[in-house]
Amino acid sequence: MGVNSNRVEDFSSHETALRITTEAAMPPMVIHSVCPPPQQTTLQKLKQRLGEIFFPDDPLHRFKNQTLCKKLLLGFQFLFPILQWGPQYSLRLFRSDIISGLTIASLAIPQGISYAKLANLPPIVGLYSSFVPPLIYSILGSSRHLAVGPVSIASLVMGSMLSEAVSPTENQILYLKLAFTATFFAGVFQASLGLLRLGFVIDFLSKATLVGFMAGAAIIVSLQQLKGLLGIVHFTSKMQFVPVMASVFNHRDEWSWQTIVIGFIFLAFLLTTRHISMKRPKLFWVSAAAPLTSVIVSTLLVFCLRSKLHGVPIIGHLPKGLNPPSANMLHFKGSYLAVAIKTGIVTGILSLTEGIAVGRTFAALKNYQVDGNKEMMAIGLMNMAGSCSSCYVTTGSFSRSAVNYNAGAQTAISNIVMASAVLVTLLFLMPLFYYTPNVILGAIIITAVIGLIDYQTAYQLWKVDKLDFLACLCSFFGVLFISVPLGLAIAVGVSVFKILLHVTRPNTVAMGNIPGTHVYQSLTRYREALRVPSFLILAVESPMYFANSTYLQERILRWVREEEDRIKSNNGSTLKCIILDMTAVTAIDTSGIELVCELRKMLEKRSLQLVLANPVGSVMEKLQKSEVLESFGLNGLYLTVGEAVADISSLWKSQP
Amino acid sequence: MGVNSNRVEDFSSHETALRITTEAAMPPMVIHSVCPPPQQTTLQKLKQRLGEIFFPDDPLHRFKNQTLCKKLLLGFQFLFPILQWGPQYSLRLFRSDIISGLTIASLAIPQGISYAKLANLPPIVGLYSSFVPPLIYSILGSSRHLAVGPVSIASLVMGSMLSEAVSPTENQILYLKLAFTATFFAGVFQASLGLLRLGFVIDFLSKATLVGFMAGAAIIVSLQQLKGLLGIVHFTSKMQFVPVMASVFNHRDEWSWQTIVIGFIFLAFLLTTRHISMKRPKLFWVSAAAPLTSVIVSTLLVFCLRSKLHGVPIIGHLPKGLNPPSANMLHFKGSYLAVAIKTGIVTGILSLTEGIAVGRTFAALKNYQVDGNKEMMAIGLMNMAGSCSSCYVTTGSFSRSAVNYNAGAQTAISNIVMASAVLVTLLFLMPLFYYTPNVILGAIIITAVIGLIDYQTAYQLWKVDKLDFLACLCSFFGVLFISVPLGLAIAVGVSVFKILLHVTRPNTVAMGNIPGTHVYQSLTRYREALRVPSFLILAVESPMYFANSTYLQERILRWVREEEDRIKSNNGSTLKCIILDMTAVTAIDTSGIELVCELRKMLEKRSLQLVLANPVGSVMEKLQKSEVLESFGLNGLYLTVGEAVADISSLWKSQP
Repeated sequence: MGVNSNRVEDFSSHETALRITTEAAMPPMVIHSVCPPPQQTTLQKLKQRLGEIFFPDDPLHRFKNQTLCKKLLLGFQFLFPILQWGPQYSLRLFRSDIISGLTIASLAIPQGISYAKLANLPPIVGLYSSFVPPLIYSILGSSRHLAVGPVSIASLVMGSMLSEAVSPTENQILYLKLAFTATFFAGVFQASLGLLRLGFVIDFLSKATLVGFMAGAAIIVSLQQLKGLLGIVHFTSKMQFVPVMASVFNHRDEWSWQTIVIGFIFLAFLLTTRHISMKRPKLFWVSAAAPLTSVIVSTLLVFCLRSKLHGVPIIGHLPKGLNPPSANMLHFKGSYLAVAIKTGIVTGILSLTEGIAVGRTFAALKNYQVDGNKEMMAIGLMNMAGSCSSCYVTTGSFSRSAVNYNAGAQTAISNIVMASAVLVTLLFLMPLFYYTPNVILGAIIITAVIGLIDYQTAYQLWKVDKLDFLACLCSFFGVLFISVPLGLAIAVGVSVFKILLHVTRPNTVAMGNIPGTHVYQSLTRYREALRVPSFLILAVESPMYFANSTYLQERILRWVREEEDRIKSNNGSTLKCIILDMTAVTAIDTSGIELVCELRKMLEKRSLQLVLANPVGSVMEKLQKSEVLESFGLNGLYLTVGEAVADISSLWKSQP
Repeated sequence: MGVNSNRVEDFSSHETALRITTEAAMPPMVIHSVCPPPQQTTLQKLKQRLGEIFFPDDPLHRFKNQTLCKKLLLGFQFLFPILQWGPQYSLRLFRSDIISGLTIASLAIPQGISYAKLANLPPIVGLYSSFVPPLIYSILGSSRHLAVGPVSIASLVMGSMLSEAVSPTENQILYLKLAFTATFFAGVFQASLGLLRLGFVIDFLSKATLVGFMAGAAIIVSLQQLKGLLGIVHFTSKMQFVPVMASVFNHRDEWSWQTIVIGFIFLAFLLTTRHISMKRPKLFWVSAAAPLTSVIVSTLLVFCLRSKLHGVPIIGHLPKGLNPPSANMLHFKGSYLAVAIKTGIVTGILSLTEGIAVGRTFAALKNYQVDGNKEMMAIGLMNMAGSCSSCYVTTGSFSRSAVNYNAGAQTAISNIVMASAVLVTLLFLMPLFYYTPNVILGAIIITAVIGLIDYQTAYQLWKVDKLDFLACLCSFFGVLFISVPLGLAIAVGVSVFKILLHVTRPNTVAMGNIPGTHVYQSLTRYREALRVPSFLILAVESPMYFANSTYLQERILRWVREEEDRIKSNNGSTLKCIILDMTAVTAIDTSGIELVCELRKMLEKRSLQLVLANPVGSVMEKLQKSEVLESFGLNGLYLTVGEAVADISSLWKSQP
């Protein structure tokens, strides 16, 4: 026992030789050797790694052990989720879907017109976009509650990015072409993210970032609506806070009291209904019906008083009929291509994020799974098809999906019902919108986006994680004062910086033994934990990478220095051994390996022994490959801190 | 015992209530509650965090508990390390320093002239740069073995970046001005990195990146020297592989056989001496003396045969005298300022990386510490002063420092000796270089940079860490085929991507009990580890961040699904509890907290219990602040996996 242990040092073998050691205060302890992970070739490892990166959810597991026929059926069901629930579809489900479909249609029609205006597009495009994409999604999409159509954020971003390049009023046709082209690229981008299984890209827009971004965007959008609400004619096309506010106050002579009165009355009405529905979720239909009611009432009002209210801007003539094809309007060359691609990517990412987050939320509530990568393909194909049928970027809308869910939607059929209602509107009801005042659209937009300002979550972020709150603030102010893409980029930068900071300056913790156990825990956290004389036990809480190897070396040497100072002032027993608990060192690279080597040498020069405890599989493998372990010798590697302490102490006793 | 435990649930208290549970196969076990870290205010935490970021080595620890007088003395010693060893300086040390100083001078003079040509600067600037900066460094620097002067990498990069903006032959004065300005900015950048204690920035140039970068740069530099070696007159000023090779072969008519013969003879001589010194480190002086010998011999040769060798280009007239002041040549406005700043930052970072790495290497050999941040200030001040006295970017050179160390240098006095030798050269010996052929400078440069191609380390990288090898390849090919700054940027990008990939796709490991212990280890690594019936024990090996929360949720649910499938096919006992070992979850953000919540809810719906084991301090704190722990209840949090298994099993027995 002790030195003459029979521990097998051939690390590649899976045999575990045991060694028993005794320590005065401790129960007898068995010393286990540390195993490397099972041997794999580089190719196997690469395959496994790529599998983890691109197929973490093992999407093909359903196909295992099935007959060819069943596999084909499953494959079709995988591509067209409608085949999964279609056969079981019943009249009872259809009744629920009809009710919810009509409810969201009543919301989708006024919102469609409003959001199209937000994107500086003709109002009719908003209705077109509420017709084709929902039909495609209901066949390809895997969420049963997503209500598809134009959404505020993507509309805002498209409007802001495109109008910086082309004026939507002076060069209407080119602007429309660019919008369809951007939609096409958004679709291509979304579908290829899904196809290449790169869905994790959208994870980099963390919730904290999105909270800040949405709040900033909501404020910008609301302020922009002051144009309609105050009746201002000359308004900036810029999206930043400063020029918008300047426009509002520099054109005070253009404020129209009639518009203001109508606008604020309906705004108050809409906000009240929203408030009621939020207080009592059962009354969701109150806020769901309010926009259409407002449109009808205000249109009637303007129609009846048209002789007196001629100062109030109205929508005017809208063409009747279905979506005209627009594939010929896609614009694949020339100087504006770059703008279209950029806009497509930014709106594509944002609409994906919203669509997938909403899909996941309601799937979790009803306990079914939404496959992120597949959803991306569905949304992408829907936008590609949309761009060829006069639609602009669409996705699952949070507000309408919530109404859909509350109204009892059971399947994607509710989207088809909604699309049919829009179809009827497009074919027959368009002239009715002639007298609808623009101001009402502004009020509808403000009511829709005001819910995006989620100050409670922001407060929660502040309370729990200051750096998340910083990312939130950055995207908020970035969007408000700089620009949408830059604000987002800054926020993503802050989030990535947070990860790098954690790696660059990891925590190191001095540990002590919890009496009566083999458990070692932080000395500062656990008052009952006791220092083990002659040992310094350090846990490193991060991978050992190039980015922190210098820091860790300095920090560990400082721990040693401080421990020696403490011992000197307390007249304790001399420090003889430093144990590094590697449990939380989840990865190591060549710089990290060099750090371990260097540290061992430096400590050896001071007659201190360095011992590693419990390296994880990948770290063990690399330590072995780099032949560092050999320099550590027999007593340099243990399975647990407890075994290291017990074995080394008994060694010291046997050879004082 | 069991449910009626007296475990205190007030997590903020430091009391540890104990609970004892028994399990058939296990010894009795005490259940400990999990403590949060000690309470701190936001300000205290911020202070501690900033301390860790900027002062990890606690630079002021020397000043603690000292008298004011002693503190002042220590302060001066801190600023001027020469005061530390100055008082003990002896004749014996001086003798060693004189020998090593003269040895590196014999190397520094030909290298100085050569490197200046590499940077497209007049040769004399290389000598100026070997005079002032070493003097300043010997007062401010903390390394005793660093030999300061121009280095190949920084010269190459400066030459390549500046000559893209200004032609060094057509616009010589402007080019010189830009070089000094870039040097000034390099110094400012270096000094401010040190002053702001941002030294960790250079850690992001990992060793893997540098190996690839240096090899690529060495090849480019060597190929560029073909201009001199072949005697080509019309040569590209570009630095990429393709145009350089095109220049070599498109101007075959300009090849001069006289130059080629002289060049390759001396190149062979220099490479042979290099080889001898590498084989026998004691013969370091062979390669150290070779460059000066070559210069002398070749100069004599050309001088004697000057009537026959008139086709061989020579250095020509060099001005006698000390460094002229150049502060008036700094160029702080105009269109070239951006180029100068960019060049300054890139050369500044590269020369810092080399200087500090070299300083640390020799400090580790002689067991003293080099303070990275202080070294940065020393190097930065030296370059700022250099830029005002006709010097370009300088730092500690690897090759000359190695010679310095081998020649027995003891202190920075060797730098002063070297500077004095350069001074004598500048004042009296300049005319002797008139007939020195340019071709010899090319041979000296090739010999110096060929050692930068470190294929052994590259092979080691491939063997140990494939992603490190990829970073190495990226910087190698980036530098060779694209450009120096872009190649470096790509390599840093790959390194950062590696960190992000590790966080985005972390390892999850299923664990089992090692019989007879409370240790739980990976089932795939430890054959003897046994699954615990009804439990699934998972270790998550990474922080839980926004970037991986979706992945982790999918992956954990897949583990559960696979475990249930396994149980079904084996007719095992039903899965009832999932234990997440959080030891390696070293940080959590709001998305991670949401993941934990969501996971608990989803598993609850399937009647599975989720239990957390051993969260680290910061994770515990955030879980508590976000009030997630309350939903976990009494049996949701344990100190170790062993305690969780024991306690929950005994609970199940008491209430079946």
